[in-house]
Amino acid sequence: MNNADSLPGWSLHPQLEQDSVTIADLPLSRLLLSRDANYPWLLLVPRHPGASEVIDLGSVEQGQLMTEIDLVSRALKAVTNCDKLNIAAIGNVVPQLHIHIVARRRDDPAWPKPVWGAAAACPYDLAARESFIAALRRQIGLL
Amino acid sequence: MNNADSLPGWSLHPQLEQDSVTIADLPLSRLLLSRDANYPWLLLVPRHPGASEVIDLGSVEQGQLMTEIDLVSRALKAVTNCDKLNIAAIGNVVPQLHIHIVARRRDDPAWPKPVWGAAAACPYDLAARESFIAALRRQIGLL
Repeated sequence: MNNADSLPGWSLHPQLEQDSVTIADLPLSRLLLSRDANYPWLLLVPRHPGASEVIDLGSVEQGQLMTEIDLVSRALKAVTNCDKLNIAAIGNVVPQLHIHIVARRRDDPAWPKPVWGAAAACPYDLAARESFIAALRRQIGLL
Repeated sequence: MNNADSLPGWSLHPQLEQDSVTIADLPLSRLLLSRDANYPWLLLVPRHPGASEVIDLGSVEQGQLMTEIDLVSRALKAVTNCDKLNIAAIGNVVPQLHIHIVARRRDDPAWPKPVWGAAAACPYDLAARESFIAALRRQIGLL
């Protein structure tokens, strides 16, 4: 599961680097946590140089991406006990392919609207963030 | 490809029925066109009774869903020559699992924001709609 290798030429987009912290490298994707504490908000970034669309991945990579979406979604739901998962590949601003996986609650600042642009970002308490990442890593099986 | 069978107990959610027209049944999902002409906007609705999340599908269905997302995304991009594809499973309002696949252009009414809630829905010219559906069916290989 822990595979830090990336294809040559891949690096995390500076905007994603700035807006998130790294949790782990899964076989295909880097798993990130958004710095916005309004919602438990993960991102999967396939380490495929130049990919901006899901259709830029080959079929084996697409299958692996779905496997990682399933793995991460289940872990996020288990850790947060959320009401709904929101999963999206948008990328109108940051062109590097990235998949949002957001745990939504009926009392969160944007419900029922999507999260993008809905509320000003809110910083994490550092201890809460580390505790959340640790719980997520345990749930995914990353020790 | 044309497989109108659904698992027993499945029917399209009334809100999706109202907001879209059916293009075809793919092996797993019903393919719909949104009635909002602001953007070429497709939906894939897996015919799995009770599913509201991607993680409610089994792994074979998830693989098929990714195959259908790839197929439909490629056709939509080919027909529209769009600048970006937006793909999302949100479902905070309509609980039946549905995947949005939206063709975005830098001059569309919401760019670069996501489409949900961004602009009042705009009805299609009927001939334009039928022509778009025909082009999409040809591109997908549904004759």
